[in-house]
Order: sequence, then C-alpha cells, then structure tokens
Amino acid sequence: MTQSNIPNRCSSAAGSGIKPLRYANGVLQMLDQRLLPTEETWLEYRTYQEVAEAIRSMVVRGAPAIGCAAAFGVWFGARDIETESMDEFMAQLDSICDHLGATRPTAVNLFWALDRMRNFARCHTDRPVFQIKIALEYEALAIAEEDDRLNKSLGRHGQELIADGNRVLTHCNAGALATGGYGTALGVIRAAVAAGKQVAVIADETRPFLQGSRLTAWELQRDNIPVTLICDNMAGYLMSKGEIDCCIVGADRIAANGDVANKIGTYTVAVLAKEHGIPFYVAAPTSTIDLSLSDGSLIPIEERDQREVTHQGEKQLAPAGIMVRNPAFDVTPARLVTAIITENGIAEGNYLVNLSALVGGGR
Amino acid sequence: MTQSNIPNRCSSAAGSGIKPLRYANGVLQMLDQRLLPTEETWLEYRTYQEVAEAIRSMVVRGAPAIGCAAAFGVWFGARDIETESMDEFMAQLDSICDHLGATRPTAVNLFWALDRMRNFARCHTDRPVFQIKIALEYEALAIAEEDDRLNKSLGRHGQELIADGNRVLTHCNAGALATGGYGTALGVIRAAVAAGKQVAVIADETRPFLQGSRLTAWELQRDNIPVTLICDNMAGYLMSKGEIDCCIVGADRIAANGDVANKIGTYTVAVLAKEHGIPFYVAAPTSTIDLSLSDGSLIPIEERDQREVTHQGEKQLAPAGIMVRNPAFDVTPARLVTAIITENGIAEGNYLVNLSALVGGGR
Repeated sequence: MTQSNIPNRCSSAAGSGIKPLRYANGVLQMLDQRLLPTEETWLEYRTYQEVAEAIRSMVVRGAPAIGCAAAFGVWFGARDIETESMDEFMAQLDSICDHLGATRPTAVNLFWALDRMRNFARCHTDRPVFQIKIALEYEALAIAEEDDRLNKSLGRHGQELIADGNRVLTHCNAGALATGGYGTALGVIRAAVAAGKQVAVIADETRPFLQGSRLTAWELQRDNIPVTLICDNMAGYLMSKGEIDCCIVGADRIAANGDVANKIGTYTVAVLAKEHGIPFYVAAPTSTIDLSLSDGSLIPIEERDQREVTHQGEKQLAPAGIMVRNPAFDVTPARLVTAIITENGIAEGNYLVNLSALVGGGR
Repeated sequence: MTQSNIPNRCSSAAGSGIKPLRYANGVLQMLDQRLLPTEETWLEYRTYQEVAEAIRSMVVRGAPAIGCAAAFGVWFGARDIETESMDEFMAQLDSICDHLGATRPTAVNLFWALDRMRNFARCHTDRPVFQIKIALEYEALAIAEEDDRLNKSLGRHGQELIADGNRVLTHCNAGALATGGYGTALGVIRAAVAAGKQVAVIADETRPFLQGSRLTAWELQRDNIPVTLICDNMAGYLMSKGEIDCCIVGADRIAANGDVANKIGTYTVAVLAKEHGIPFYVAAPTSTIDLSLSDGSLIPIEERDQREVTHQGEKQLAPAGIMVRNPAFDVTPARLVTAIITENGIAEGNYLVNLSALVGGGR
C-alpha cells in the first residue's frame, strides 16, 4: 500500500456524494477515512493482505463499502495465485476469502461479497484459470458499480418517507463514504433533496470512532446539505424539544425477522424514537439482509480495541488501567423499526414475510 | 490565581474520595479538573473574579462543588471591599454575587450558596463591616464542611437501595470531585461499599466534557471500587444484555414536581432504564431542590461553546464551519425517576408532597 500522488481534492457530481473507492489498472485507491475531516489522503492497494488490513483498521468502513473493498481484495488475491491447476486455484481462493472474512465479523455485506466472488469462480471452473482471473476483476468492478446504482434506487424509494421541511436524525455514517457511492441513509436524504425537499440533518457524532462528526458532517457539508452536529447523548434532549421529525440509519446486518445490527448507539436512538413517537427508518441494500439468521441475537457483535474509547489520537482521556467495554454494534429489535428501505422497495409490518419478498427481487 | 507548589498527589481517607476544594489562610486551592486524569494540578485562588472564571471554565464543576466555590468567592469579594459603610458594603456584595451568579445558569446550588452568603450578611447588618467579613469566611467554610457531611448522610440513606452484587450505571461525575467531598451518586456507591456490598460501577464517559472517563473513572479507581468505562451510546446495549441492575445520577436542579435537570444524556439514560424496567435513582442534597419552580420546563439550560464538541484539546474532530448544538444539561421528567435520595431521606411517588417535606427537614 502506498500513498497516492494524485491530487487530494476529489471532485464529485454535485449532490451525489464522494466515492470512497476508485479502481483502475490493477490498483485500488481508497480515501483514508481515519484522517477525515482534516486530511483527504488516498491510499493505494495492490494485494489482498493490504486490503484486509485496510478493512480491519477502518481506512474503509461501512458495510457496503467493506463489501466492495473485499471484492477487489479477492481479485488481487486471485490475480497473484501462481498456478494453472483449477483445484489449487480454488483452494487458494478459499484461503484468500477466509483471510478477508476474518477482518470484521458483523457486517454481512463482507461475507456476501466474498461469497459472490467465490461462487462466480466456482461457476466457471470449466474455463482456464487465466480467464477466471480476468472475469473476477470485472465482477469486483460490477459489485462497486451496482452498489452506487442500487443506492440511488434505494434513495428514490426512501425519499417518499421524508416530508418537506423534515429534520432528520442520523447515527454513524451510512453515506457515500460507507458505500460504493451515494449512500444508504444519506442516499435517502440526497434523493429527498434532489426531489426538491428542504431537509435538515442532525448528525450524532457517534463515539468512539466519530463517524458522525468526521464523516457524515464532512460529506453532507460538501454537498451543501444542512447538517448540525450533536453528541450522541443529546438526541433525547432534541427529541424532547420536538426538534427531530424522523430518524434514518444504515445497517450492518438485518436478520430475517427485521432485527437490525448497526453501529453502537443505534438501539438507543430507536428506543428514544419510540418514546417520542418518531418514525425510525433503516436504509440498507438487500445484500445486508441475512435470511439465514432467524433473529438479531444470532448476529456476532464485534468488540474493538479499548484504546478507541480511552484515547483520542495520542491524547489519553481516561486513567491508565481502567476497564473498558467497546462493542462496535448493537441490535435494534424489529418492533422498534418503522420501515426498512432497500433498493427493491420498502418493507413494513411483518418483516419475516416482507423482507424475504424484497430479497427475492422486490415489488 | 497561581499554580500551587504543594505536592500534586493529594491523599484522601480510604474510600471517602478526594476533596476538590481546600481552604486555608485566605487562599482557596482547587484541583484543576480539566487536566484529570493525567495531571493532578492544584490552582490557588484569592479573588472573586478568579473564582468566577474557575467556575465558568470548569476548573471546578458539579453543582454542590460550584456552590462551595462560589461561597469562597463571596468571601474573597467581601474581604476586599474597601468601605466601612454598611449600605455601600451590601451594594458591593450584591454586585459580587451577581458576577459569580452569571457563570453557570443551570445548577441551583450556585444561587443557593450565593443567597446563603448574602442573607447571612443581611441578617447581621447591625454589626460593623469588619465583623461581617470575618463571619463570611466561617460561613463559606461551613458550607463546604456541611456538604461533605450531608453527602455521607445521603449515602447512608441511598445505599439501602443498592443490593449486594449490583452493577450500577452512572452518568457524568456526581462524585467527591463534584461536591465538598464524598459525592452524591458516588457517595451512595461509597456507602454501599462501606456497608460491605459488592458493587460494580459502569461509567458513561459523558461527552463532550468526558466527566465520566476523566473524573468518575479516576476517583473510583483511586478508591479501588470496580469501574468499567463505556461510551454514552453503549448503555442501551448493556441494558439489553441484562448487564445493568440500576442507574444512579446526580442533579443540578430539581423542580418541585420532581423533574430533574442534570448533565446532558441523563434523560436518555432514564428513558433506557424505563424501557428495560431498571430503577433510575437521583442523588442530590436538598440545596439542589428548587421549590420555586413548578416543573422542569422552567429550568434554564446552559448551551456551551461549540468547540467542546468539535475539538479534543487542539485536535479537530469535525469539519470547520459545521453547525453544532451543545446543551450542557437536559431535564428528566419525574415519571422516569424511581426515587430521589437526599441527606434528609428518600422521596418517592408524589414528589410534589414528598420533596417539600424533605426540604423542610426530612423524616
């Protein structure tokens, strides 16, 4: 991985959000999201190990973006396998996918993308290895391009739920930066703005990694969408004052019954929304829906390094040796979710029935 | 104000907590709480203007501790008034109290202490000015000593609500550092531990000022009381996992109907506690109860500098020019408060009746 020499400032179509991954000529460039909002640095990746480390260390984050990055990781890995034996190739491909899959356990899009790449290879084992390699590059590109496209479709469905003048609370970053482009929760906001609605966003800063203050605030400011930053513990106060009209968040994994795993703190937002009678929407591509899990209790919750809580950069915020919990996600039960917005349409009510219909192709 | 040359490490009776204010020979020493947990620096104060600035800038914080500091501020101001005319003295004393009262609007203990000092002077206007000055020094000392003593009484009442083995969530710092000593919410914890109970504390870090990670974690670790630090947005997750048995917080002002103003995020903790059927206790001296306010909507909520949210020290966490909200407090309605613990006993149920009985002297 090397730092890119291309200009730091990356243009994006007005209102469409930045694309955090760029691929050309065998090199994946990813915006180092750890350095935002003060530095726009693009890093270059050429091997699957580098991509895995970028996912683990959160250079790239957000369930759909992780899926896109992992797909390119599989392509890099496949490209560098030195064999013409199909059995040997497939065995090494499995090992590469396992390595990439060990980075972050909660986001299902990671495993969805790995499975899609692996299954694509498996379906073409009648061809020579070099042809599969070429095809895998196109498949990785297809995943990233589809993600951008389906987020725009998701946004068109979801924006119908946003009224003109709405003040919308969001948590973490389910924006262009979290996806192949445009965003899921923020894609709905972008689509509402594109439809001519006045929308003001209230962004939870989202401790400990501050995706809200560093990323959501940054990408919305860049698109000239009004955004007000708050600490996570202020959302209840604003709701009690009547200053929030609805909530919209992304998801890292959605169980068959509609339970939603998303960034830690999402559950609290949902409980607060219920207390105040405010709609709570989840926006995610169908690749986030894991029909193999009957409910959210089966979703693995990643616990991350204590240092994310006790330090800000090099600055120590807590006494040395203190015990810390740092779950990166929580599960919001389906009963608190007003609707789930996907690229294939909106699910409400009986998620067990309505989600699987959307995964099947929508309405 | 000068930095003290006394040793940084300040001893405290085991389990009783540190006293954040020390007074001797016309000099008030206060632990600079902005530098904790990494530095223990004591600053010296000799004028009311210096004390006012210390309150405003949060060298000292916590409603009862602010009251104690303000009382010494009044004494410094009174001491330096150069007149023997009682009318002139009282006029200048009013002006000093107004200056100190303009520092932080929410904590009623500030106004309670100022009124107590001013009324003490008013009751003795038959004496010469120099005698009133001497008496005001004693009155300031009395306020600080009483606060330590009544917190121990509060702790004894409150610890009856804590069961052996309880895992207790607290928000912000209502500890020894927030008071004349021992603490209110953490005083209850200390009293439970002193009564032989095993208690584990879960401390919300409490953005943006991080009173939980910097102060609560520090003072409990110092007293060898088990404490686990979490981000504010993790409390709901731990409750959903059955890992919290009760919540206990302090208060900055309590209205006659039992509505509680406390550090921003307290309301969210109370909503989460209700959702999970977990008791939510408030611990505060009766000086925090403001019977002149019928309900919490009348309590002024301080909004503080945006920089507390957008920066950590010199480190910029959010894009420049972003809009920010930074309310320092919120109001928890009485219906979410299981009990209010004071030095005079515990109020439950009909707070309108039971709180005024406690303010009147308790049971």
